[in-house]
Amino acid sequence: MVELNFSHGDEVRFRLAKEELDAVVLESSEKDIVLVKLSSGYNIGIPKENILFARKIPRKRIVEEKKEFALPKKEGLGSIGIIATGGTIASRLDYKTGGVKPLSSIEDFAKNYPEIFEIANVKKIEIPFLVLSESMSYEHWIKIAEKVKEMLDDNDIKGVIVTHGTDTLHYTAAALSFFLRNLGKPVVLTYSQRSIDRASSDAHLNLLSAVKMALSDCAEVMIVGHANSSDDYCYALRGTKAKKMHSSRRDAFKSINAEPIAKISENVEFISSYNKRDNSKRAELDTNFTDKVALIKYYPGQNPEVLDYYALKYKGIVVEATGLGHVAASDSLYNNWIPVLKKHIRNGFVVCMTSQTIYGRVDPFVYSNGRDLQEAGVIFLEDMLSETALVKLGWVLGHYGWKKNVKEKMLENFAGEISERLVLG
Amino acid sequence: MVELNFSHGDEVRFRLAKEELDAVVLESSEKDIVLVKLSSGYNIGIPKENILFARKIPRKRIVEEKKEFALPKKEGLGSIGIIATGGTIASRLDYKTGGVKPLSSIEDFAKNYPEIFEIANVKKIEIPFLVLSESMSYEHWIKIAEKVKEMLDDNDIKGVIVTHGTDTLHYTAAALSFFLRNLGKPVVLTYSQRSIDRASSDAHLNLLSAVKMALSDCAEVMIVGHANSSDDYCYALRGTKAKKMHSSRRDAFKSINAEPIAKISENVEFISSYNKRDNSKRAELDTNFTDKVALIKYYPGQNPEVLDYYALKYKGIVVEATGLGHVAASDSLYNNWIPVLKKHIRNGFVVCMTSQTIYGRVDPFVYSNGRDLQEAGVIFLEDMLSETALVKLGWVLGHYGWKKNVKEKMLENFAGEISERLVLG
Repeated sequence: MVELNFSHGDEVRFRLAKEELDAVVLESSEKDIVLVKLSSGYNIGIPKENILFARKIPRKRIVEEKKEFALPKKEGLGSIGIIATGGTIASRLDYKTGGVKPLSSIEDFAKNYPEIFEIANVKKIEIPFLVLSESMSYEHWIKIAEKVKEMLDDNDIKGVIVTHGTDTLHYTAAALSFFLRNLGKPVVLTYSQRSIDRASSDAHLNLLSAVKMALSDCAEVMIVGHANSSDDYCYALRGTKAKKMHSSRRDAFKSINAEPIAKISENVEFISSYNKRDNSKRAELDTNFTDKVALIKYYPGQNPEVLDYYALKYKGIVVEATGLGHVAASDSLYNNWIPVLKKHIRNGFVVCMTSQTIYGRVDPFVYSNGRDLQEAGVIFLEDMLSETALVKLGWVLGHYGWKKNVKEKMLENFAGEISERLVLG
Repeated sequence: MVELNFSHGDEVRFRLAKEELDAVVLESSEKDIVLVKLSSGYNIGIPKENILFARKIPRKRIVEEKKEFALPKKEGLGSIGIIATGGTIASRLDYKTGGVKPLSSIEDFAKNYPEIFEIANVKKIEIPFLVLSESMSYEHWIKIAEKVKEMLDDNDIKGVIVTHGTDTLHYTAAALSFFLRNLGKPVVLTYSQRSIDRASSDAHLNLLSAVKMALSDCAEVMIVGHANSSDDYCYALRGTKAKKMHSSRRDAFKSINAEPIAKISENVEFISSYNKRDNSKRAELDTNFTDKVALIKYYPGQNPEVLDYYALKYKGIVVEATGLGHVAASDSLYNNWIPVLKKHIRNGFVVCMTSQTIYGRVDPFVYSNGRDLQEAGVIFLEDMLSETALVKLGWVLGHYGWKKNVKEKMLENFAGEISERLVLG
């Protein structure tokens, strides 16, 4: 039996054989049962022996909202909602320490971006948490998706903006692309690489462009940010086709294996096809997700015994393989991956291939190595980005009903994550 | 005791507590001792109980060389050496199967590239093995380095060309950059993305440009290949600063965080600074290398327990982190990497950071997360490519004498693997 290290009043995540649940622990005199209150309000008892794992969920930082502050409002402007989640775009230099510190209130956030109120009414700003994006995980993605869905359901709101740190923004964008089904309005993620109090800040242009995109007729999950290193205009990139490609430049995000959706300067100019706005559509939230998925990057000489570790701990992996989707095969000295992959796949482990070349498409049909991998049951993910593929794999494997169709679902184009071969070769 | 699965006559790799050795197993009547012949010619006995692991080394494919074939020779041309190692550039379509099959002899190789004999005398072509590059490992790198060194020692030979598959060419280029010290002549790796019998083949221009570079006055390890997708000219890229960035395009290799060294069309035009040829220099071979190093790519929510696995199996890792070199820190829900990294680093495990943005530089001084990682003992590798960093880490940790200076050595610029900050920001 695992050691249980919490006390009453704590919010705890419990992993049981078939499910996970978050609940607040209640006082109880029972020795072998933990009494908890679920978010639904129900109290239940969990036999301690059924608990595989339990961990305390740190309390969310409470963001104090000054009640007297009212968001500016102008007649005749479209309404949007904003969800701020931390990162440089919601930070300011701390002149005492030289570091950056987060904007701590909605008033603070609004007052730093007065220009957006000239073109839109911001009906709501919410700050569900303030976390740097490198520290985010799928639970944050789910929380953001829930908040976005709430705002999309508001008939006044034409589109939703999510501000976010840059480091893992593209993973979150991919998650929202899968979690929000039947989208009828724009969902726009934006960021900055330099904080707002720096002369070179990209925050203002990015947020302003995000607002324009949120009011546009494009019902997609997108990343909006600088198109180049001058302060001219932004691109809107498809949420499943973007990657942070520079550690510090303002045009950090690039569209990979796809054209940007739109160029945003004074107005929005569309570059490629997109789903049109339909305000009557009701977005559906599908946050079924398992975190029992991993991403590994192949390198020459890599010992395939690493697969034994992952097959033990995870339900599936994405291998960022070389070139067209290759790993060491039978012409290697001793580290042939194919028999090891075959063994684990036979036992139900899911293995997907993407390419560490970033650009281009995996293809199992050019070399015999690829054909052998395909025969072993490896799923070749076309031109899907590794990051998108990881998120998608967690989402597909999070759906019990899709258990028998994992390959089919991984290759179904849910959110533009696969580009047509004819268009992009 | 491990199961020993070989018989006399086999070449076997033995892993003992403190070393690894390759040897041919001899007949012996001893029950507890394996009698072997080392490559030095000495016979030794290994107590079976000391063998942690043993595996047969597959026999190298013997390449038949037709003795009657003589390489063409013209008066007045400079001499080069060529080492062919498999990959598409040394392959041809097999019209029977539709797949590609390797050129099997030196004659075969030479006859497919008649144009190079117009501009150089090819003094030697050697084919030490024919392996697709995704199946290569550090032992192949060492073998290639040894062959290159032999050819460089030949006073007639002005430069050496290595033909190689594309998938892991940049890893091999990095390895040769570190293994060949005190270089006085060019070492040029080249490749093709389309086999020579296809009309769109890039093989001819690449190899011809590689020959020009091998005759030039640039004493560097370089990758030469198409600069763009038309058949106009090639670039020579620094061996430590190049990465395969497209799975199928002919200009697959890009110079990362550095300018190409030269443009090669009719002639060689240098673009950036380089080490000048000095035929009197004697290249030194330094192939000390440990394969007890690994590369992992961080992703949001990644469980830091993966570090326990790597710390158990390896001496050091390169973490392809996010942005400026970040992983989940204390603002994460529960997967804070920093205490786990700290624990393992304290026990002598080496952890280096590069960025999965590919472009740009890691920097621990911008955010407190970076400072915490730096304090934990993580080595931030400036703008070094992850692939180069992995190879370098194996090379640095392969030098017992550098044990106390690992950080210093990882940050020493041995082969242009770190760009100066002033030049490239």
